[in-house]
Amino acid sequence: MKEKIKVGYVGLGRRGTGMLQNCLSEMTDVEVKYICDLNEKKIEKTLKYLAEKNYPTTPIATSDYKEILDDDEIDAVFYMTGWNSRVKYAIETMKAGKYAAIEVGCALDLQECYDLVKTYEETKVPVMMLENCCYGRDEMMTLRMVKEGLFGEIIQCNGAYHHDITVGFFRKDEDGNYEKDHYRVWEYLNRNCENYPTHELGPISKVLGINRGNRMLSLTAFSSKARGIEHYIETYHPDHYLKGKKFNQGDIVTTMITCAGGELIRLTLDTTLIRPFYSREFTVRGTKGMCEESKQNVHTYILEGMEEGVFDNREEFYAKYDHPLHKEYAEMQAMGDHGGIDWLVLRAFVESVKNGTNTPIDAYDTAAWLAIGPLSEMSISGGNVSVAIPDFTNGKWFRREEPNMSKYSLDVVVEDPTTPIKP
Amino acid sequence: MKEKIKVGYVGLGRRGTGMLQNCLSEMTDVEVKYICDLNEKKIEKTLKYLAEKNYPTTPIATSDYKEILDDDEIDAVFYMTGWNSRVKYAIETMKAGKYAAIEVGCALDLQECYDLVKTYEETKVPVMMLENCCYGRDEMMTLRMVKEGLFGEIIQCNGAYHHDITVGFFRKDEDGNYEKDHYRVWEYLNRNCENYPTHELGPISKVLGINRGNRMLSLTAFSSKARGIEHYIETYHPDHYLKGKKFNQGDIVTTMITCAGGELIRLTLDTTLIRPFYSREFTVRGTKGMCEESKQNVHTYILEGMEEGVFDNREEFYAKYDHPLHKEYAEMQAMGDHGGIDWLVLRAFVESVKNGTNTPIDAYDTAAWLAIGPLSEMSISGGNVSVAIPDFTNGKWFRREEPNMSKYSLDVVVEDPTTPIKP
Repeated sequence: MKEKIKVGYVGLGRRGTGMLQNCLSEMTDVEVKYICDLNEKKIEKTLKYLAEKNYPTTPIATSDYKEILDDDEIDAVFYMTGWNSRVKYAIETMKAGKYAAIEVGCALDLQECYDLVKTYEETKVPVMMLENCCYGRDEMMTLRMVKEGLFGEIIQCNGAYHHDITVGFFRKDEDGNYEKDHYRVWEYLNRNCENYPTHELGPISKVLGINRGNRMLSLTAFSSKARGIEHYIETYHPDHYLKGKKFNQGDIVTTMITCAGGELIRLTLDTTLIRPFYSREFTVRGTKGMCEESKQNVHTYILEGMEEGVFDNREEFYAKYDHPLHKEYAEMQAMGDHGGIDWLVLRAFVESVKNGTNTPIDAYDTAAWLAIGPLSEMSISGGNVSVAIPDFTNGKWFRREEPNMSKYSLDVVVEDPTTPIKP
Repeated sequence: MKEKIKVGYVGLGRRGTGMLQNCLSEMTDVEVKYICDLNEKKIEKTLKYLAEKNYPTTPIATSDYKEILDDDEIDAVFYMTGWNSRVKYAIETMKAGKYAAIEVGCALDLQECYDLVKTYEETKVPVMMLENCCYGRDEMMTLRMVKEGLFGEIIQCNGAYHHDITVGFFRKDEDGNYEKDHYRVWEYLNRNCENYPTHELGPISKVLGINRGNRMLSLTAFSSKARGIEHYIETYHPDHYLKGKKFNQGDIVTTMITCAGGELIRLTLDTTLIRPFYSREFTVRGTKGMCEESKQNVHTYILEGMEEGVFDNREEFYAKYDHPLHKEYAEMQAMGDHGGIDWLVLRAFVESVKNGTNTPIDAYDTAAWLAIGPLSEMSISGGNVSVAIPDFTNGKWFRREEPNMSKYSLDVVVEDPTTPIKP
């Protein structure tokens, strides 16, 4: 086991900067040896930030991630880059013998999912998608309750990305011009699919034991028409350079997934229409109990024996069923991130690197979740045709090696007071 | 226009008795001339009830609905019978020149939907499905807001029947034996489909102008495994005569419908698993506004210009956008039914009969909504295959005669203070 690891950090956009500043640079067992971005201004800002907070070392700045891969001291590399580059980078990193972490998103094509798995099987170097919502407090409490059998047999799950992100497409740069490099804009103009499946599907996958005793069999996706962004431009940004352009991405995309165990999963992408609140709609239905998220911070739980009529009662359940990780997190000072999920997902990865184990969201999970993008695109473009979901484990889903057994595992519930989540 | 109409009333089960006692027998412009049921005890109970409330006439009791059809004085007949008989009765009634009203449900086969439409076109006698949820306060307020353009272009709608009805399958009769004639039990044992689509689809259809400028094009349905009822029997009724039987009806069925206007509809049937509350999930998404039902009596509305972060705010909207029918209903004393919806849907039908007009939920609507049952069954049994939804209007959906123009219309918003909803 390593006491301290050295990492490279690629991608200093909004998300990358937030994760580095709020979480990774706070961890005393991690040395960020490299920071990497194509934009020099972003590099400078980050160096300035780290210097001002008295970060113990000064990272090497580079615009070429390959420089990091050539450094034998590096244990792992983080990729907080756009949707179309992460998997390629992860594969090169694994081939260089270093753990790779990638931000969430969806693949462009199935091939990169297959390539990721093949690389893992050939190199045995782990990879992890940093799906922070798997570490949400309600998601983890539900996972624990499911693993303890409190929900009975699991029948159906829902998840969604209900988040009106339209405003983000129309930010202006320092010179007052509309930003042209927002990676999502070009996706929405050209593609039509479930383009952001993992916040929903990640926690559901773990609840259902996908890739460990269960697997996703088929997928069918449906798209409404695309009018939200065009309406937004017409109404609020008539001078925008995309005025008059036809967007392909349907405003609401519903994806239905069938599983080997007979369970049904429903995913909803909902990002370009006016709405009153954010929600991931996290819903797990069993024969003996269920949970449902009506909106962020409004979750309802019911177990057999309880009376109907409850609503918004998660606080009562925390007292009994809070996941050990979140009990520990609650006892610490808040760490300025999304309720712990960013911190915990990074710790999960860092601990895997330190201990030389596989990750809690491994190559098979990452590939299966990334694949929802291109599979939903196929289904929609084919007229809501049912498409087979590849078995990236190639049959190992019912005969797997032991999962990650740390306290960050999403397959088993482990209590371990000896390795604190704040090192 | 008729001052008073004479009607026959067929089916005195729980629902039929409730509607007759709470609503129809309270209407001074309706004479219930016949009551009809195969069960003599139910007939006796109803006669006793009417006598005790001093109903002005004593209905003729019969076990043969054809007796009603032979009576030239009868203007209309209500069928509150099981799912597998209503359409057949309605057709015979229309052929006898009398308006027919049927309770909600789904068809067993597409043929009866075609037959209903054909009968209407040949006889010109109107029929109406008594879809009370079309007259819900929030559904009608939303309909009004949509018709006034407040939601902008409508993009997507959700509806559901979230209602754990399992307990109702296990009622015992007066002798302490399990009831064997619950019509739903046999449906759940044998079929697997969206078996109760109209509470959800009815209001959505009217919002989207289905059969009037728009139409449903295709349907794809998905079913989870069926474990809820079996679990319930094993746990609570191990002595039940259906113990050990395999039920076919999936616990959760999701039905996706595409429309000619590019809109997407999602329906959910959820009736056999533990859950914390009833909800119809009524959701309408537009470019400028939306409404969403998180649970019964928890509805959120947002319109362009409002700040995000609102929740459960329908009361504020009633002040401005309450539908005229519900404004009037709110001013009256409550009539002991489901918040007015039973009363209003019956008034809608009665006024159509009195005025000799078509009904607000006419033969085309009724056929299209009933068809969801067999179409979803086809889709599920075919492995989630997309099936075409028949155009029962045969092209008239984009070239229709004028709709019902009364204050009960669901196609236009009519204010009419001259015909009170309580006659």
